[in-house]
Amino acid sequence: MQHKSWIIIGTIYATLVQVCLTLGSISGDHKIVSLPGQPKVNFQQYGGYITIDERQHRALFYYFAEAETEPASKPLVLWLNGGPGCSSIGAGAFCEHGPFRPSGDILVRNDYSWNKEANMLYLESPAGVGFSFSANKSFYDSVNDELTAQDNLEFLQRWFTKFPEYKGRDLFITGESYAGHYVPQLAQLIIKQNVKFNLKGIAIGNPLLEFNIDFNSRAEFYWSHGLISDSTYESFTSICNYSQIRRQSTSRSLTPVCSGVIRQVSREISNSIDTYDVTLDVCLPSILSQAQVLNQLQDTEKIDVCVEDETDKYLNRKDVQQAFHARLVGVSNWTFCSDVIKYEMQNLEVPTIHVLGELAKSGIRVLVYSGDQDSVIPLTGTRTLVNGLAKELGLNTTVPYRAWFGGTQVAGWTQVYGNILSFATIRGAAHEAPFTQPKRSLVLFSSILAGRTMPESPSLTEH
Amino acid sequence: MQHKSWIIIGTIYATLVQVCLTLGSISGDHKIVSLPGQPKVNFQQYGGYITIDERQHRALFYYFAEAETEPASKPLVLWLNGGPGCSSIGAGAFCEHGPFRPSGDILVRNDYSWNKEANMLYLESPAGVGFSFSANKSFYDSVNDELTAQDNLEFLQRWFTKFPEYKGRDLFITGESYAGHYVPQLAQLIIKQNVKFNLKGIAIGNPLLEFNIDFNSRAEFYWSHGLISDSTYESFTSICNYSQIRRQSTSRSLTPVCSGVIRQVSREISNSIDTYDVTLDVCLPSILSQAQVLNQLQDTEKIDVCVEDETDKYLNRKDVQQAFHARLVGVSNWTFCSDVIKYEMQNLEVPTIHVLGELAKSGIRVLVYSGDQDSVIPLTGTRTLVNGLAKELGLNTTVPYRAWFGGTQVAGWTQVYGNILSFATIRGAAHEAPFTQPKRSLVLFSSILAGRTMPESPSLTEH
Repeated sequence: MQHKSWIIIGTIYATLVQVCLTLGSISGDHKIVSLPGQPKVNFQQYGGYITIDERQHRALFYYFAEAETEPASKPLVLWLNGGPGCSSIGAGAFCEHGPFRPSGDILVRNDYSWNKEANMLYLESPAGVGFSFSANKSFYDSVNDELTAQDNLEFLQRWFTKFPEYKGRDLFITGESYAGHYVPQLAQLIIKQNVKFNLKGIAIGNPLLEFNIDFNSRAEFYWSHGLISDSTYESFTSICNYSQIRRQSTSRSLTPVCSGVIRQVSREISNSIDTYDVTLDVCLPSILSQAQVLNQLQDTEKIDVCVEDETDKYLNRKDVQQAFHARLVGVSNWTFCSDVIKYEMQNLEVPTIHVLGELAKSGIRVLVYSGDQDSVIPLTGTRTLVNGLAKELGLNTTVPYRAWFGGTQVAGWTQVYGNILSFATIRGAAHEAPFTQPKRSLVLFSSILAGRTMPESPSLTEH
Repeated sequence: MQHKSWIIIGTIYATLVQVCLTLGSISGDHKIVSLPGQPKVNFQQYGGYITIDERQHRALFYYFAEAETEPASKPLVLWLNGGPGCSSIGAGAFCEHGPFRPSGDILVRNDYSWNKEANMLYLESPAGVGFSFSANKSFYDSVNDELTAQDNLEFLQRWFTKFPEYKGRDLFITGESYAGHYVPQLAQLIIKQNVKFNLKGIAIGNPLLEFNIDFNSRAEFYWSHGLISDSTYESFTSICNYSQIRRQSTSRSLTPVCSGVIRQVSREISNSIDTYDVTLDVCLPSILSQAQVLNQLQDTEKIDVCVEDETDKYLNRKDVQQAFHARLVGVSNWTFCSDVIKYEMQNLEVPTIHVLGELAKSGIRVLVYSGDQDSVIPLTGTRTLVNGLAKELGLNTTVPYRAWFGGTQVAGWTQVYGNILSFATIRGAAHEAPFTQPKRSLVLFSSILAGRTMPESPSLTEH
C-alpha cells in the first residue's frame, strides 16, 4: 500500500523534476536556506540537480558546502564515495567529513569538517545513486566506469556554468574505496580531453587500485590482526587464492573445498565484526542497543557506530529532502547504496594503479592513503602497489617512510616519491577514515591541499 | 644530600624490618586500614613483608586485596608482572586490574577490578623489585629464573601460614610478559615438589614463551600494522634475523649492516609510538601535556596514558608507603622496574612453552592470552606457539577458533585444545591487556576461574 503510493509519487516527481531542470541557470535556486535541525552557520550551502543528458532525463544530485571562512580564496574539492553505487552525501558528507552529523532529530556540528579547508562538493554518482537518477531506467542496466567518468566530467562542466566563480579555482578530486576507480579515471579524462580545469591533485583513501594485490592482502591482514587462525590462514592462502575467489564466485566455478574455506573464514571472523574497521564496535539491532543504554557498565563511545542508521533516517525525511531540493525518482526510499543500478562488475578487475602514474607524470599531485584498521582494502596491499608504481616511474623517495603527527600524537605513517606521489596511513582509522579519525583526517586533508608533506613532529598547538 | 639521608634511613629501616619480620604470625599486623585517598570499600586489604631467607635478610612484599563479596567462597589468584624486574603492585594492581587507580592525589575505583571475582595477591618478585628487598645486596648480582621460582614458592608457603584460611582454596597463578617464565616455572615447581596447594590453573598474557618465535614475529607485526615500510620489512627479515639481534647485541657482534637496519626500523616506528600498544597515544612530557590541556580541540581519552607516572608518584608518597607497611631498603625510590637487580639475561632464551605442556598433562588448566595491539610480544608468534604445542601434545581442538564476546561486542578470538589448553586474544588490548581493555579482561578472567570457555554470543545483559 505504502509502496504503491510511492510509485505514484515517484512518477509525479519525475515529471516535476524534468520541468525544474529546464528552469533557471542561476545558483540561487539551489541555495539551501537551512537543513532541518542544523545549528546556525556562516557558510552557504547548495543542493540540487545538474542535468547530464536532457534526452535521457538523467540528472546528478550534488550537495555543496562552501568553506566556513574565506570561500573565495579556498580550493574546490569534489568528493566521491565508492561502492560502486554508494552515496557521497550519505557516507562522505554525513558520516565522514561534512559540516554536520545526524544525531536523533537534529544535526550536530562536525568539529573536523573538511569545509574548514575547502569548498566541498559532494556528488551522488553515477545516476541511480542516492538522489541522482535516470528517468530512462534502461541506463541502470549497463553502468560502467567509462559512463561514470563521462557523466562526472559532464557534471563538473555544467556545474561550473552554474557556479562560474569556481571555474578557475584550484581543483582537487577526492574519494575512497571504489572511487579508486572514479577519481583517477575522471582526472585522466580531464587531461585527455584537455579540459580547462585547474586540476591540482587527487587523493584517494583505501582505494581499489589493483584487484589481485588489494584482495590478496586480506588474508594476511585477517591473520596478523587475530581474526583467523593459523590453520585457516594456511588453507586460505594455499587452497584459495583470494583474487580467484571473486572471479570464481561470479562465474559460479568456486571449488567446494575453497567454498568450505571461505565459510570457515567467515565463521572465525564472526558476524559481529565490522571488517571495514576491525577494532571498532558494531551498530547493534535495537533490542541489543536498548540493553546497552540500560546498562550502567557500558562505556560511552566517542564514535557513533550507528551514524549510518541515523543518516538513513535523516535523508529519508520529507522536510530534509525538500530543504535539499532533492526528490526520489523511481525509488521509494533514499538508500546508502543503490539497489537499482546493475554496475558492470568486471570493471572491478580493471587496474587503475597505472592511471595514477599517468597523472603524476602530468604534474598532478597524487595521494593514496589508508585507514589502517580496514581489512577490506588493507594498507599492506595499497602500500605495496604505490611502492611498486614509484619504482616503475623511477621516482626517488623524497620523504622516507616515517611517522606523521596530528597535534602531539602519531597520526600515521607516510612516504613520498619524487615530491608528487605520496602514500600515508591514518592510525586507528577505518575504511572510511574520517568517520573514525576525523581529526587526523583533517590534518591529512589540509596537507594535501597545501602541497605540504605531513607534519613531521609533534606540534604544541593543535591544528 | 637527600640521597645520603635516604641511605641512612634505608639502613635504619633494614634493621627495623628484620625486627618486624620476626614478630607476629597473625595477619592482623599486615592489615591495611585505608590507603590514602581511597574511596570507602567493604573488602579487606593487606600489605607487608614475608621473609624468604632470615639469614640473608631477604623479604618479599605483597599486596592482598580480598574479593569484594564473599571472599571465603572465591579462589585465590597470585599475580606476577614481568620485566624481569618490574613491579606487580605498580603495574598489575595500580595500572591494570587492582581495585583502584591513582588519579592525582586520590584513588578512584576500578569498575573492572579482578577482586570482583577473586582474592587477588600481588607479589613484588624477585627481591629487589618494588618494595621487596635483600639486605644482603650480593643477591642482586645473580638473580635468575630458578631463584625466582624458589623464592616465589617459599613466599606462597609462608604466606599460607599467615593466611591459613586460604591454604586449601582453589589457586590460580597468573601474570604477563616475562611472567611467561615466572608463572609456568612456579607451577612446575609446585607439582615437582608435590606441594599440597590446590593449584587449578595458570593464565599468562602476552608472555615470553620461546625467544625465537616471539621475537621473530615482531617484524611481521610492525609491517602489517603500517609501522615500517615494505623495503625496511624486507631488510629486517632478510638482512637481520630478530632472534639473532638480541644475542648479537648482547655479545656486541651485531653486523654494521644489521645495526643500520635496526636504526631504520626505530626511525620509521618513531619515538612517539608505544610499541606495547601501537594504537594508543603516548604519555607526553609536561610541556606538551600543558599544551594539550589548554587546547580545546583535544579529544578526551578514556584511557589515562599517564597512569604509570601517577602510580610512580603515589607509591613514592611516605603516607602511602606507611599505609601499605612498605619500606624502601637499599634504594632511594620505589621504581616501576628495578635498577638494582642484575637479572641473568640468558634466561630470556630459555623456552617455557614445553612447561605449559607438562602442566596441561598434569591436569592444570592453561590459558595463554594476547592483547592484540602489542608489537613487543605479538599475538601472531604466541598463537603459533600454542598451536604447535597442541599438535605436539596431540590435543584436539575442542573449541574451534572463534570470536568471544564481552557483553554485546566481539572482545577477541579464542581456541581451545583438549579442554585444557586455551589461546585467546583480547581485541584492542595492549601488552598489559587489562590497562586498555579492563572490561574485556575481566570477562576473560572470570571465564578462566570458572573453567568456562569464553562467552560465545553477545549477551543482552552485560557482564
